[in-house]
Amino acid sequence: MTPTPTTGLEALPLRPELRGRTPYGAPQLQVAHRLNTNENPHPLPAELLATLGEALGHAALELNRYPDRDAVALRADLATYLSRGGERIEPAQVWAANGSNEVLQQVLQAFGGAGRTALGFTPSYSMHPIISAGTGTAWVDGHRRADFTLDPAAAVAQVREVRPDLVFVTSPNNPTGTAVALQTVTELYEATSYGHGRAGVLVVDEAYAEFARTGTPSALTLLPGRPRLLVSRTMSKAFGMAGLRLGYLAADPAVVDALQLVRLPYHLSSLTQAAARAALAHTDALLATVDAVKEQRDRIVATLPSLGLTSVPSDANFVLFGRFADASAAWKALLEHDVLVRDVGISGWLRVTAGTPAETDAFLTALGEVAPDHRLGD
Amino acid sequence: MTPTPTTGLEALPLRPELRGRTPYGAPQLQVAHRLNTNENPHPLPAELLATLGEALGHAALELNRYPDRDAVALRADLATYLSRGGERIEPAQVWAANGSNEVLQQVLQAFGGAGRTALGFTPSYSMHPIISAGTGTAWVDGHRRADFTLDPAAAVAQVREVRPDLVFVTSPNNPTGTAVALQTVTELYEATSYGHGRAGVLVVDEAYAEFARTGTPSALTLLPGRPRLLVSRTMSKAFGMAGLRLGYLAADPAVVDALQLVRLPYHLSSLTQAAARAALAHTDALLATVDAVKEQRDRIVATLPSLGLTSVPSDANFVLFGRFADASAAWKALLEHDVLVRDVGISGWLRVTAGTPAETDAFLTALGEVAPDHRLGD
Repeated sequence: MTPTPTTGLEALPLRPELRGRTPYGAPQLQVAHRLNTNENPHPLPAELLATLGEALGHAALELNRYPDRDAVALRADLATYLSRGGERIEPAQVWAANGSNEVLQQVLQAFGGAGRTALGFTPSYSMHPIISAGTGTAWVDGHRRADFTLDPAAAVAQVREVRPDLVFVTSPNNPTGTAVALQTVTELYEATSYGHGRAGVLVVDEAYAEFARTGTPSALTLLPGRPRLLVSRTMSKAFGMAGLRLGYLAADPAVVDALQLVRLPYHLSSLTQAAARAALAHTDALLATVDAVKEQRDRIVATLPSLGLTSVPSDANFVLFGRFADASAAWKALLEHDVLVRDVGISGWLRVTAGTPAETDAFLTALGEVAPDHRLGD
Repeated sequence: MTPTPTTGLEALPLRPELRGRTPYGAPQLQVAHRLNTNENPHPLPAELLATLGEALGHAALELNRYPDRDAVALRADLATYLSRGGERIEPAQVWAANGSNEVLQQVLQAFGGAGRTALGFTPSYSMHPIISAGTGTAWVDGHRRADFTLDPAAAVAQVREVRPDLVFVTSPNNPTGTAVALQTVTELYEATSYGHGRAGVLVVDEAYAEFARTGTPSALTLLPGRPRLLVSRTMSKAFGMAGLRLGYLAADPAVVDALQLVRLPYHLSSLTQAAARAALAHTDALLATVDAVKEQRDRIVATLPSLGLTSVPSDANFVLFGRFADASAAWKALLEHDVLVRDVGISGWLRVTAGTPAETDAFLTALGEVAPDHRLGD
């Protein structure tokens, strides 16, 4: 008989499925070039910093009071931003939380949970299965083609077979980079109607939507008439505010009603609401960095072949590049050249964030040294 | 056969137990005197506002980067604060999140969840059962005496019978106001050891601890040697920073390890971490309001008998007062006098926040007018 441990994590009545796990998260290393978490390398523009200081100072004067529980003004500003694409989004269709992770957790609390199932097409955003597990939702791995694209017919067939309560589609997909065709989203939505009143919700995670190549429409355009379609976004990437933790979602107003049943009251601080509103007032200045980042992304993509490497088509602010004989050895070799990229666990591939021109220089120089020893032989 | 609704919340595949629910939260009404959510009425001191502006301005310069996922510096500052009581608390024993609600949700995700049970002694903080439900944890109502105090022997017997995975004790209790004796906490802790390696965790929710009457020790003093004891706190009340959303917890380091398995990565924004640290650097100035608030609390308690009313002994920044023939009619009558108190659903009683002298004046004047018509007859 194994003796029961008397101290430490092993001695605590932890949920059994958490035993032996390690906390999620990329290594936070002090490296000259941190290209591993898809941050936007551009600091906030000066005009926003001034507005932000005023807005936060104003919010501080009432910091002894609880924040607006429903974040009404912020949701209106987010709706205005989302309506820039042409499709009118109403404030009642918008919900916000501390990062899209919290939005997705609330979605899973409302529509998933014990006895329910979520399906997503891996490799994709690794937090989807983790947040599912955190809410007691069973997880099913969906399939992709070998080139990481979705096969619409196979995806639809799998949804019809598994009949999940939630389907996750990441578009542009992280960590592979490619946007999903709207036709595929439409077909998946229809597939989540199982008959006899049973249906699932379809979550399109558009964290990187603003970086999509020209002519790639957002799933926001599909919202009218689709009450079980949810489109999540974040201010961490294109807006360059990863430190703010502001994620949001657009959907039918009834979905927002549902999320309000599970959200923790006053979940969004007064400072978060004020800072996000200040940023949205400077949308144009913030999004000016998007084109600069896309330029570096395309430069990385264009340079890889000369190093004997290739990439997956990217609509995001990162590039999945390879192939390597041993991706984790290549990751380590790049780190030795002071460049931190992400080993996302896909055999033969690594992911790099597109940053500033100087970061791209450093990355491509390091890769030039590393590639000959590490690329997959012919 | 009932036709399936085709629009709205009813048409969505919501979890069945959420159907028919309404979102939690006190009415956010525009009233002259808002004494319903136990906010601290004192705005932040000028010396803190200056530091806060600097700290937030500094954080804004790196807002494009993700925050410290482990909030190491903030947890060290919180540990220093908690160590003021004499018992040394290490940074590794401290965890923080967006309000104690999120801390408690993480606790329930780690130690509760589907197939597990939590027990709390109602009436108590109403979010305990709500957050339990949100994590799929079954909830059992514990008993109190008619005077709202805990009967230690009965509480221990109930824990031994139910064998819950989590036990919640709120001390000082909300909404009734009275602190729980440490001896009771100790006995409840021992009761959560069920033998054969099975045990529960004991969460002491000390949101109002700083307002306790002199000589009321914190459960922090019980932490050594009790790895399943968790003490939660908040900066919303004594620190007067409800808008900041900063809750925290002290426990064995292994508990913190457990919470890191379920926390959403980067859950605490850079602004939240910076603002909380700025506040903790001005602890003395902030806590100076505590004595002023306690004075108003004691003044309310002392005045009630002259109005033919009574109260429950309070260690918090609020007073449960009564008794009324019809508490909700008395609540409405006070509202008509521009005073918003809280109807906490306890027959015959209402809860009022102790605020500024002017707020106490307004409350007692309104109550003087309302009491003759509404107090329970002899």
